[in-house]
Amino acid sequence: MARYRAGILGATGAVGQKFVEVLNGHPWFEITALAASERSAGRPYGEAVNWIGSTAIPEEISRMEVVPVTPDLDCDFVFSGLTANVATSMELAFAQAGYPVISNARSFRMHADVPLLIPEVNPDHTGLIDRQSELEGYIVTNPNCSTVGLTCALKPLHDLFGLEAVQVTTLQALSGAGYPGVASLDALGNVVPYIGGEEDKLRTEPLKLLGTLTQDGITPADIKISAQCNRVPVLEGHLECVSVKLKAQAVADDVRRAFELFESPVRHYHLPTEPPSLLQVFTDEYFPQPRRHVELGGGMTVGIGRIRPCEVLDVKFVVLVHNTVRGAAGGAVLNAELLVRQGRLASRLQEQTV
Amino acid sequence: MARYRAGILGATGAVGQKFVEVLNGHPWFEITALAASERSAGRPYGEAVNWIGSTAIPEEISRMEVVPVTPDLDCDFVFSGLTANVATSMELAFAQAGYPVISNARSFRMHADVPLLIPEVNPDHTGLIDRQSELEGYIVTNPNCSTVGLTCALKPLHDLFGLEAVQVTTLQALSGAGYPGVASLDALGNVVPYIGGEEDKLRTEPLKLLGTLTQDGITPADIKISAQCNRVPVLEGHLECVSVKLKAQAVADDVRRAFELFESPVRHYHLPTEPPSLLQVFTDEYFPQPRRHVELGGGMTVGIGRIRPCEVLDVKFVVLVHNTVRGAAGGAVLNAELLVRQGRLASRLQEQTV
Amino acid sequence: MARYRAGILGATGAVGQKFVEVLNGHPWFEITALAASERSAGRPYGEAVNWIGSTAIPEEISRMEVVPVTPDLDCDFVFSGLTANVATSMELAFAQAGYPVISNARSFRMHADVPLLIPEVNPDHTGLIDRQSELEGYIVTNPNCSTVGLTCALKPLHDLFGLEAVQVTTLQALSGAGYPGVASLDALGNVVPYIGGEEDKLRTEPLKLLGTLTQDGITPADIKISAQCNRVPVLEGHLECVSVKLKAQAVADDVRRAFELFESPVRHYHLPTEPPSLLQVFTDEYFPQPRRHVELGGGMTVGIGRIRPCEVLDVKFVVLVHNTVRGAAGGAVLNAELLVRQGRLASRLQEQTV
Amino acid sequence: MARYRAGILGATGAVGQKFVEVLNGHPWFEITALAASERSAGRPYGEAVNWIGSTAIPEEISRMEVVPVTPDLDCDFVFSGLTANVATSMELAFAQAGYPVISNARSFRMHADVPLLIPEVNPDHTGLIDRQSELEGYIVTNPNCSTVGLTCALKPLHDLFGLEAVQVTTLQALSGAGYPGVASLDALGNVVPYIGGEEDKLRTEPLKLLGTLTQDGITPADIKISAQCNRVPVLEGHLECVSVKLKAQAVADDVRRAFELFESPVRHYHLPTEPPSLLQVFTDEYFPQPRRHVELGGGMTVGIGRIRPCEVLDVKFVVLVHNTVRGAAGGAVLNAELLVRQGRLASRLQEQTV
Repeated sequence: MARYRAGILGATGAVGQKFVEVLNGHPWFEITALAASERSAGRPYGEAVNWIGSTAIPEEISRMEVVPVTPDLDCDFVFSGLTANVATSMELAFAQAGYPVISNARSFRMHADVPLLIPEVNPDHTGLIDRQSELEGYIVTNPNCSTVGLTCALKPLHDLFGLEAVQVTTLQALSGAGYPGVASLDALGNVVPYIGGEEDKLRTEPLKLLGTLTQDGITPADIKISAQCNRVPVLEGHLECVSVKLKAQAVADDVRRAFELFESPVRHYHLPTEPPSLLQVFTDEYFPQPRRHVELGGGMTVGIGRIRPCEVLDVKFVVLVHNTVRGAAGGAVLNAELLVRQGRLASRLQEQTV
Repeated sequence: MARYRAGILGATGAVGQKFVEVLNGHPWFEITALAASERSAGRPYGEAVNWIGSTAIPEEISRMEVVPVTPDLDCDFVFSGLTANVATSMELAFAQAGYPVISNARSFRMHADVPLLIPEVNPDHTGLIDRQSELEGYIVTNPNCSTVGLTCALKPLHDLFGLEAVQVTTLQALSGAGYPGVASLDALGNVVPYIGGEEDKLRTEPLKLLGTLTQDGITPADIKISAQCNRVPVLEGHLECVSVKLKAQAVADDVRRAFELFESPVRHYHLPTEPPSLLQVFTDEYFPQPRRHVELGGGMTVGIGRIRPCEVLDVKFVVLVHNTVRGAAGGAVLNAELLVRQGRLASRLQEQTV
Repeated sequence: MARYRAGILGATGAVGQKFVEVLNGHPWFEITALAASERSAGRPYGEAVNWIGSTAIPEEISRMEVVPVTPDLDCDFVFSGLTANVATSMELAFAQAGYPVISNARSFRMHADVPLLIPEVNPDHTGLIDRQSELEGYIVTNPNCSTVGLTCALKPLHDLFGLEAVQVTTLQALSGAGYPGVASLDALGNVVPYIGGEEDKLRTEPLKLLGTLTQDGITPADIKISAQCNRVPVLEGHLECVSVKLKAQAVADDVRRAFELFESPVRHYHLPTEPPSLLQVFTDEYFPQPRRHVELGGGMTVGIGRIRPCEVLDVKFVVLVHNTVRGAAGGAVLNAELLVRQGRLASRLQEQTV
Repeated sequence: MARYRAGILGATGAVGQKFVEVLNGHPWFEITALAASERSAGRPYGEAVNWIGSTAIPEEISRMEVVPVTPDLDCDFVFSGLTANVATSMELAFAQAGYPVISNARSFRMHADVPLLIPEVNPDHTGLIDRQSELEGYIVTNPNCSTVGLTCALKPLHDLFGLEAVQVTTLQALSGAGYPGVASLDALGNVVPYIGGEEDKLRTEPLKLLGTLTQDGITPADIKISAQCNRVPVLEGHLECVSVKLKAQAVADDVRRAFELFESPVRHYHLPTEPPSLLQVFTDEYFPQPRRHVELGGGMTVGIGRIRPCEVLDVKFVVLVHNTVRGAAGGAVLNAELLVRQGRLASRLQEQTV
């Protein structure tokens, strides 16, 4: 069934492992290369990896030999779960060598010529790829995990009412810090009111995502965003308390309807990883909760609840996003699926067939 | 040493237990009556109580017999840790019977003639007691636990710059819900984005606390406050992410200095439970944290950190308050101490001496 | 596809909810009756239930009307998730009214004429049903959640080597206490070294399960079992540290092989809920862990690790069991499947067909 | 007041920090040297340390300059909180240079000439110091944290009844693994059923502690001990489920009395850190619990509960020990106090006085 051969860069890391999980049984993509650091290369994946997931490693993946991260992998394109410090040079090397690089790293997110992509939000931004003509391949990125939840919620409000200002306070899961990540003595029964770089990403990435593609690249949206980011003792699922000031007049019920009526612009593509609904609105005021609702839509649906008037701005509400699925590996896989449908991902199998 | 005999209403509950802890070794107050429901009355306190603290029950308290909650207790005044549903009638009954009632319950907090009190914030509001002339005794209340942290932080800003608007998102500890309180299956590794009634208290109580006492009662402060309240898996300590819009021009450094230079208006009273400093400002951006800093100043100091510009309002910062000490029992004891110094608490011992 | 209509008694409780989850998409059983207390009866299940699971309630179940727990349900048999205090009378009433009762409650587990059943351990014990001739229907039970894990591990050792004595210390998940169950202030960052009744169940239930069916009922196995039970802050999965004294000479490697070579006596039945393997042996000494391995075999596989010599008895090892799936709802469903294959569950549909 | 000047080796580590906490306000010992790795040396302690405690660093300690770990410190003796890999060479170097080394590291615990010491258990074992004549100074060690709790409980049973065999399963706190220690993704809502080296320490260290000092050194006690060690999501406090086989006939009540009647052999020394009672027996079967009882006796008392017959051995019970106080820094300080009283710690101040 699968017609595209995918490589995973950083396959033994926390994000790499999530790629393996999300791609398990994927109808279009087959993992043909697992690339990781020298320490892991040459060993079977099942031995090289410190598997942190709660599902078993697929048998055939477990036996695959890990290869070094060099741009000669046996695959049609690569997912990158590399950490930023190596991603910058490596992703560029792969793109130069002709590989489409579907990256989860932050290195190129804000680069003027690189799409920062959520298929339901800004599918046309893949047009930026044409500006990467100096590369044989190309680079496409997905946003920071907390950005994804916020931006999916902001999208229908931006379209319908216009956004002037956004206040967001996040309660972010431990898995967002990777592995080993946060020390248990810092995490257990505690909150850490700071996450390095996170507030800046929340301030800037949504502007590019909600921006407009022109001949000169992306014109960012003009929205003031203020973020306060906290780490809480939750395994999976970032919760975000959001308050918005809208350009048009709108009350809480209008905002609720905007969420409920939102339609994915890529629905017609029938992307395998796209959930039945991007947004799910809860009416129970105790919802959404990370532990109960993070797996909605296979972890690809963003939950929204507690929509009500804000005494300072206009309307406030709560957003929940699965940070390692929708906010990382799942989002990247959905990006790759979009690129397939847009004819921007070629499989060598196809070429050979031709 | 102790010259005032204190009764505790609701002595076996979570708040009542905290009163016992906080009053242990108090230089002015001696517990002479432990009152609780019929189920507990007649039994030694140590047997009647399901003690949830991590320090042992003081020996002599453990042996005291619990008495019913009737306004004939052997004491000079009472601390009330009653739940709101019984507090309304019982606190009134005690006040009618001549007891000063220092209450932690919410029943009378917003009553026009009842002081809502934080000694370092509005010590003059005890003047409202004079409006309770229909009672033999009187009622004084302390604010909701999350209100206390917020208001202590807002006080110097309100004084120096004036406040127009406040956005606050709270991450509240489990102990704030009492015992048994939140089910562990709801709490562990989870966030519950709703706490009944809490957002309304945060919207209204600070206005009374920061209001002005006139001949006609309290004129509330004119500040727009918007709150989002979450329950997080932390044992003690509410963390609050605050953003403020000021009336006067002020930047983050001005706000920091306002916190650092704040002086308690009741310092000259040398109240035993008043901490060396109401506010402690942290410069480490990972601080304050509930588990590490909640016990500052014996749980009576409010921690503040991450003071920085806000992209939407003016300045944002993080506040930490010990919800069961400063935010409940400790706050009430400090209120009683203020009333002693103001000559509003009479001890029968004194009377007998005279 | 489904040919048997199942009722669930106590459908809104924690165990009842797990029955709903486990039966979702079941090839043989269809839920046709959701019975719960008067408070819930008459309301749609989705409204009546405080759903604690992390998967959504199946749509059609959510809309079903809850009915009272009276023995006139529209179904071929019932699963009972009732608490023991009501189970005693109600399960008997249903059995008298002609319903097979597949119970998870403890009420009849040790009754001489009632099978206590784990299909892979003692499938022939269903023969006890014939001793319930005074009933129109019958009662079959599954063991206590911690008993299940222990007994599955003991089974091959009992068969191959004989067991003299067993020491077991359990680290049990919060979900085992139902909902609301353990208070979060007792659970978070804590261990409670006592679970009411649990140690006694571990001492007695395995003897019945590993006993022999004779004409006079079950002759229990003759094994001394000593248990120490602890509640730990884990959501799902009981971990048990076991040490055994064997009758025959055997070392750790023999014990490991016994686990690895164990074959289910009901494999030929192809029961839908039976996992590929009852026991999974881990060689990584850090495994099994509740959070990582509880979902093995859909929660129906028992994990075993750290097999090594014991300095006091003979061999020690660690066992992990999913307490609400294998140890409760999943175990009961597997029991029902066995009864179908043994011809002891009749469907009215079948009758009508005939 | 303080007459002995103490140095701390590894002062910035988790154990070193606990030494600072425990020594704060100590009547005999004053910290005069804080030694740590090259990375920290030369900086004020308050800046060099990542302080993980929940109390503030004492002001004067915070300002002290950290010095390198070289045997020329300005102090009368040293506490060693070094990790084993550096402790071996460094502790020897300090002892050779004339310093008494009171060590918490495991390096020399089982060395034939080095006392492994719990003052209430084997105070005479300091006699071993005389066998270290090749050193100018000497080395004394305290046991592994889980060993301490177990051995304190075994001591009265060993004295009164004799011990044949001991089964122990531990539930150990995260702080036992130091900092950063266990990753939060491994700890939260999970149990790890293995702690490297721990079971071996529990098997061997108690035998030395309960052994007899002869002219040829320690004759270890002859007890079979089998341990199973687990890491649980608790911050402080190791819980241990123990079962014992006694040489003399004794039932649970005899064992309880043995615990209750135990008298410390060093009581007459009035050591400042010795708690009022080494052992505290609980009758509430839900006790002891780590979160509630770990601070008993300032963290120096060992809690015991659930004393009852064992179906396999003789008697079983639960033990709780504060792993970083009694089980580490507090235990080492108590050792130093014993050495003072035994005349084995000389202060240069004394020398100068003479």
